[in-house]
Order: sequence, then structure tokens, then C-alpha cells
Amino acid sequence: MATETERAASAPEEYDLIIIGAGSGNTIPSPELADRSIAIVDDGERFGGTCLNVGCIPTKMYARPADLAHELRAGDRLGMRADGLALDWAAVRERTYGRIDPISDGGEEYRAAGEPNTTLVRETVRFTGREVDGRHELVSASGRVLRGRDVVIAAGSRPRELDAVPLGGRVVTNAEALRLESLPERVIVIGGGAVASEFASIFSGFGAEVVQLNRSMPLRSVDPDVSATFCRVAAWDIRCGVEVVASTAVDDGVRLELSDGTALDAGLVLVGVGRVPNSDRLDAAAAGIDLHDDGRIAVDAHQRVLRDGAPVAGLWALGDVSSEHQLKHVANEEARIVAANLVAAATGAPLRRNELGPVPTAVFTSPEVAAFGDSLDAARERGIDAFAVRHDYAWTAWGWALADETSFCKLVVERGSGRLVGAQIIGPDAAILIQPLVQAASLGHPVRGLARAQYWPHPAATEVVENALLKAEEELDREPADPADPARPAEETRD
Amino acid sequence: MATETERAASAPEEYDLIIIGAGSGNTIPSPELADRSIAIVDDGERFGGTCLNVGCIPTKMYARPADLAHELRAGDRLGMRADGLALDWAAVRERTYGRIDPISDGGEEYRAAGEPNTTLVRETVRFTGREVDGRHELVSASGRVLRGRDVVIAAGSRPRELDAVPLGGRVVTNAEALRLESLPERVIVIGGGAVASEFASIFSGFGAEVVQLNRSMPLRSVDPDVSATFCRVAAWDIRCGVEVVASTAVDDGVRLELSDGTALDAGLVLVGVGRVPNSDRLDAAAAGIDLHDDGRIAVDAHQRVLRDGAPVAGLWALGDVSSEHQLKHVANEEARIVAANLVAAATGAPLRRNELGPVPTAVFTSPEVAAFGDSLDAARERGIDAFAVRHDYAWTAWGWALADETSFCKLVVERGSGRLVGAQIIGPDAAILIQPLVQAASLGHPVRGLARAQYWPHPAATEVVENALLKAEEELDREPADPADPARPAEETRD
Repeated sequence: MATETERAASAPEEYDLIIIGAGSGNTIPSPELADRSIAIVDDGERFGGTCLNVGCIPTKMYARPADLAHELRAGDRLGMRADGLALDWAAVRERTYGRIDPISDGGEEYRAAGEPNTTLVRETVRFTGREVDGRHELVSASGRVLRGRDVVIAAGSRPRELDAVPLGGRVVTNAEALRLESLPERVIVIGGGAVASEFASIFSGFGAEVVQLNRSMPLRSVDPDVSATFCRVAAWDIRCGVEVVASTAVDDGVRLELSDGTALDAGLVLVGVGRVPNSDRLDAAAAGIDLHDDGRIAVDAHQRVLRDGAPVAGLWALGDVSSEHQLKHVANEEARIVAANLVAAATGAPLRRNELGPVPTAVFTSPEVAAFGDSLDAARERGIDAFAVRHDYAWTAWGWALADETSFCKLVVERGSGRLVGAQIIGPDAAILIQPLVQAASLGHPVRGLARAQYWPHPAATEVVENALLKAEEELDREPADPADPARPAEETRD
Repeated sequence: MATETERAASAPEEYDLIIIGAGSGNTIPSPELADRSIAIVDDGERFGGTCLNVGCIPTKMYARPADLAHELRAGDRLGMRADGLALDWAAVRERTYGRIDPISDGGEEYRAAGEPNTTLVRETVRFTGREVDGRHELVSASGRVLRGRDVVIAAGSRPRELDAVPLGGRVVTNAEALRLESLPERVIVIGGGAVASEFASIFSGFGAEVVQLNRSMPLRSVDPDVSATFCRVAAWDIRCGVEVVASTAVDDGVRLELSDGTALDAGLVLVGVGRVPNSDRLDAAAAGIDLHDDGRIAVDAHQRVLRDGAPVAGLWALGDVSSEHQLKHVANEEARIVAANLVAAATGAPLRRNELGPVPTAVFTSPEVAAFGDSLDAARERGIDAFAVRHDYAWTAWGWALADETSFCKLVVERGSGRLVGAQIIGPDAAILIQPLVQAASLGHPVRGLARAQYWPHPAATEVVENALLKAEEELDREPADPADPARPAEETRD
């Protein structure tokens, strides 16, 4: 077998465009780029990136039945019982990958053989730091040398590892968890972000006894009330302020020693403590590319990669490898910007800016969570004169239908402008309920007048949003008062 | 007991404001009207109107567990089994009226004794046709004479009756159905509108064998595709193009003879064939009030009642008794307009117009339906050069999570302006998913640019709306083509 040095000596492959990463990067080739020679690089076990194979999409196919199971187990309050409730992990796995694997396979096949101008490279690549004839040079693990006039870095991220809990055996990440043959009776999930929380909700919904371990609080970046409500409502055991000190393989599972001196055994441990951008695997630093402290590649507003603070001609990045939002809808938007700018840069047209409004995030747990923008604390830390209002599902007719006593919608509003600075929703359908607020904030519509500018069908869940907006308007209409005035709510107005 | 004539001879009661109907009408008294003497008239068995007592609100408290039950019974596709699923009708009834009756009672008590300027009249009233000293005169069933400088007619509507199926015994309407002691094994629902369809879905969800009889098709006013899909997906037996010829009481139930020559037996028959405005009970015609052909009171854009086409000073109407939309959210908006105009008329300020944008309707069935504006057929009948696009849930990741093969979102768009003329959604969460579209149409935002002006969190159900909008934009971007061009879709673009 040829060594890397020998292969590097073989003829370099020259491309107009190299795309590293076939997740959102795979959406870039378009009719406008049909005359360019393109190499698509994907070193994933399965073609197509995190979202399709081990992220957003398959998790939802497990989350949906899990959510129904959670609701049914609390069905007493709705006059429902289902003593024989059973979820079939293997059946869901078959259904999920029976749908997804063919998409991945088909995508790979198409990139390998579907277009004469496209070459598929199924290897890890890294920058050599060289530029030859205006082309950025990459070398693959097997020693292929690829040179691209444009290189799009869409290499994504990978699960962060924990020194105290080495991966392997019954210690897994999201990448392995969904394809498990079966679900053990007892599972420990380490982490409090969206990924860890979704897996905890899924495992619990499928009937496992779940403990979720959090260094601080789950979903704490969203809002303290959301975080506290999540802890109170979730059907599984959530432990806060605890870290894992050590892990040992034991019969049929893993034993974790915790910072509080206790130990926990489980048949499975999922590590979900955040994600690391894959810039290191690319030797981005060796190529002189600017990195943020957390390893993300620095880009400008046109998604151009920066070197010493200045954009590098022909180097672009998008998605988890560079974005502050590790979200598929953000990566897709960034891919649209890069696709447009690849064309624009070639013609000298003005480059498109990444300036899309607030970024919503949705966590498909039970209870569901969605949010965008700042919490009240975050807004105030940024020096914004903001207030928050909260409306509970329980104060709407739909909340009565749900027999819901815990869910709510919270709005953070700038006092002077009436601008929506942020929103947080915890409860059924949060991911959908957030959209009218995202739309208003994106189109620059202030809170004032928004509720009464449209009908909200009675008695749909959207009435919780309508009423939160009305409360915010009431608060905006108040005279600026002495902050010590007890009539002025510091944070929340309740019915 | 005094006869009506005798009582009419007793001293007339003079009010600044008489409100007939304590549904949305009950929201009118406000601090701005605190100096007026007000009579509130409600002849309902329970105080507070249709929505609270026998309509929107209690039905949702049954619809929610019913919907979950429908989803669980089709749970195989999600890898779920819920053997022994049982819904407890009596428990839901207790929960529902344990919450609602105290609201009704409290509302009645407050109106009876809570405010010195307010008198509660728990009787049916009718117009005498007389005006005395600029006051409209009413007489109650017991003969009380009430005269009001302003009279707000918010008397609502009642179930339409069927000659062939007289009410009584085991033949009921929505007014009685929710308080039944128990649910019979077999129920027939007559009608295809929102009310009938919701009850069919509830009864079926609670485990009854349900037959829904439709003169034409259920929900046919929404859209033909929606109607056909509803028939295909609903878990109960829907029969179209059939009428009831006769009904007979039989042991433990009712036998219906149908226009197709067959007969059906059931333990309960619910008649849900539309609603009749209560203008006749008020003798509105005797007072010279203009009526539409269907009995609705005619009003102008300020909610002023018309006589011979001209507004009558001091007469106002709102809600089902006058509106073309028998919807609570519409009645509430009309009540806000009347409340504002009662004040404006007294001060000579300009009256507020009823000009709020498209009216969404939501049907909380399984499958759920929501819509606003025109179907494609309706738009074309109105001479609008419109097209429709359809996006199926099945073409989104959330649709995969639901294992959904039948739900969709349809948009009707005016070709030139790109204006959203209507939208129809059938499928889970339709009532929430419609809101971003309602908001855009209400604020005058055209289809073009709407999808890409905001993030849609991946992979939430809202992606079906996002993708429908993108399809509509594609269609708008097409060159106007020969209608015979097969490349131009007549109605729908599919993936």
C-alpha cells in the first residue's frame, strides 16, 4: 500500500470547488455551478452528515412515540389509561433507518456517479497550508492531493468527549445510540443541552429508567424558569450540579462515580456534553485559518474564512464547524449564502450577507422547549432595558384541554422600542408556537399591535402566544414608573 | 302569576345599555362604561353563552384525549401498542364541568350582584318595535319592559333542527351531548360541519362506533382535497350524499331511515346540521331590523344594526346572530368593536371599523383541519387569477417522525400580486400551523420572500408551511405560460 508521501507525489487533483462535508455542504452544488469541477469530501461512516444520520431527523422518529408515551403515562388527568402501553425500540429503529439509510445511500451514489463534474472523496482530508496556482491544497488520509480554487469547509462537529468517561462498549454518543439493538432497563445521560435532553426524553419515553446528570442545569442557556420547569416536569430523574469523576465497566454495563460521592450503575451511558467543531481534523490552524477559542473557524458576514482577521479568497465555511449556532436550519441558510457567493465572487457581483434575523432553537423533549434571542437576564447583561411577561398555558382554554399546569410562553421585550428581544416557550407544540414570534421579529414587527392585527383561532394553543403579546403591550403602555413601585412588575405579570 | 300584559303595564326599566346575550356580549362592560346603567340579558340554561358552556371550550376538553386515543390506535406505525386503552367519559365530564360550571356560576353571580350599575335579566326578551324617548324597547317573557338607549344584540345562535329527526330522548345536539351520563356503543352524527365533525371525532375517540351522515361531504366548504382526505383518514364511518328520511325511537335508542333506503340503529343521535341565528326569538323583524336570508341581523362595518339599509342609532349586533362567521374569535373582535363604538358614539369620535384580516377556522378533529380565505375553486369563482400549491407532511422530516402519509398544507395565491388568498391545512397541529400564514396575510406580507425572511426550526412541523411557501414562490417566478403547457402545473406542484 502506498504511503502518504508516495501518494502525495502522484498527480494532484485540481478542482474548481472542493466541499468538505456532505451535510449542508451537499446542498451547494446547483445548476449555477454545473460548469465547475467539484470534489465532495465526506469521511462519515454514513454519507450525509449529522442531521440526517445521527441527529435531528432520526431522533425525531424516536421522540414522537416517546412523547406520546410520556403523555399517555400522565393520561389520568385526561381520563385516559393504557395499562398495556409498549414501545418497540427495534421496530422504531427499523422504521427509522429503513427510511434514512436509503436516502444516505442514494445521496452517496448520486455524488459518486450521478454527475460528470463531481468527484466523491470518502476520506478525511486536511489542509497542507500550501496554495498552488491560487488553489488551496488538501491532502487525504490515503495521500491524495486535492487542490481547489474554492474550498467550502462544511465539516461539521463531533460529540465532545469526557476524560472521566471514555467512549466504547456501553458508553456511547448520539452517533451510536439510535442504532442500539435494544434499550437497557437503566440509562444514564450525561449533559444538559438539547442533544442530551432529547435522548433522556426518548429513553425515558421508551420505558427505560433514566438519570440525566447535569454539571449545572438542563437547558440553562434558554432561561432559568424554563430550566427549572423542565426539571420539575420531566418524567425522568434529573440531577443538577453533579459531575462524573470516573467510570468503570461492570457486568452488563457501566458504573459511574459522581462528584457528590455517590455511584450509579446503568446498562448504557450516553455522553452528550456538547460538540466540538471539526476544524482540528482539517489542520485548519496549520493553514493559518483564524479560530475562535472553542475551535470554530472564524468567518465574516459573507461566510468567508478569515486569516489574520481578513477574508481568504476562495475559502468559505458554514455550519457547525464555524457557526455559533449548531443548528441545521442555520447551516442550511449559511449554505445558501455560500452557494450564492461562490457565483457572485466569480462574476464580481456583490456578496450576499448573512443577516437573517433571530435564530429559533427547538428541543423535542417532553416537555418540548423552543426559544430565540435573549432571556431577560441575557438582555439585561447586554445593556438592553427589557422586561419579560409570561403567560401560562393553564390560563388558556387549550391549557384546560391539556390539563396543563406547568407550560408557559415568556416574551422578552425592549421597553422603549417594543422590540421582541427574545421568547421562550416550554410545553406542548413549543416548536410550532414560536413561529409567529420568529416571523414578527424577523420582519421587524414590534410587539405593539401584533396580537390584535390578526385573528387567533379559538381555542387553539396559539392563544398562549396571543395573550403573552397582549400582556407585553399592557406593560409597554404603563407609564415609566419608579422601579421601587410595587405596582410595576419587575419581571412577570400574572393573571 | 302576572300575565305578560299585566307586567308590561308595570314601570318600564330604563337603561343606558342593554346587552342581549352573555357570551361575547358579556365582555363589553368595561371601565369606560362604568357610568352607564347596564342590563345584561341571558336566557341560557347556563350563564355565559355557547362557547363556554356547550361549544369551543368543553368540546376541546373531550377532543384532546380523543385525539390521543386516535393516534394511539394507529400507533403501530410508530412502534407503539396501547393495549387496554380506555377513556373514561364520566371522568372527562367531571373534569370539564368541574372547571367550567364554576366559571359560569361566578360570571352570573358577578353580573347579578357584582356591580351597582349592572342588572342581570335571566329571561328571553324580544323587541316590541317601539322606541320611547330615544330608547329601544324590549319585553321579557315574564313581561318586564326594558328600554335601552343602546342595545347590543349578541344573542348568538342555536342548533338547526331537522324535521325528520325531532330532538328529545336519545336525539340530542351539542347542547346536551357533553353532559351525557355515559356514551352509548353506537352513535350517529348527522352533519358535516365543524360541530358535527368534532363530535364524531370525540365519540369515536372515546371508543364508540360512529357513523357520520353527510348530505354532501364533511368540511366541504374548506376545500375538496381536505374533504376527501378527511373522509379517508377519519377512523369512523363517514357516509356522504345521504339524508335522513325518518327517525323512530326503538329500545335503548333510535332508528334512522336514510335516503338510500337503508336504516341505522344507534344508542344516540347527534344533530349537527348548522346553526340558526337567534334573531327570530328577538322579534328582530318586528322591530324592522334588516335580516339576511339566513336570518342573520344585517350590520354595517361599525357593527351598527341596519333598518332599510341604514344604521339605527343605538342598535348594535355582534357574533353568531349577525356574523357570517360563527366563530368565537370573530365574535370577540366584534365585541371589541362594539365596546369601542359605544364610547365613540357618545363622544362623537369616529367609529371603529371591522376590518380585521382573514378569518381562520380550526376544526379540532382527528385529523385536525384549519383554513382561512378561499379555496382555489372559491378564488377562481370570485374571478381571482389564482393558483394552488400543496406540500405534504410526508415530504418533511416531521412527517417522517409522525409516519404521516395523508396530511398536507395547501396555499392559494394570486398570480400577479403574490398575495395569499387562502390556506388549508389538514393534519396534526393544523390549528397552530396556520398562524404564521394568518399573520402574513393580515399584515399584508405577500408570499414572495416570506419563507426565507425567517428561520424555521428544523425539523419542526412548520417546515411543511415553509416548503409550501417556497413552492408558491417557484410558481410565481415561472414565466406566464400557455395554460396548455404541460410543464405548468394546473393546481399542484409535487416534489
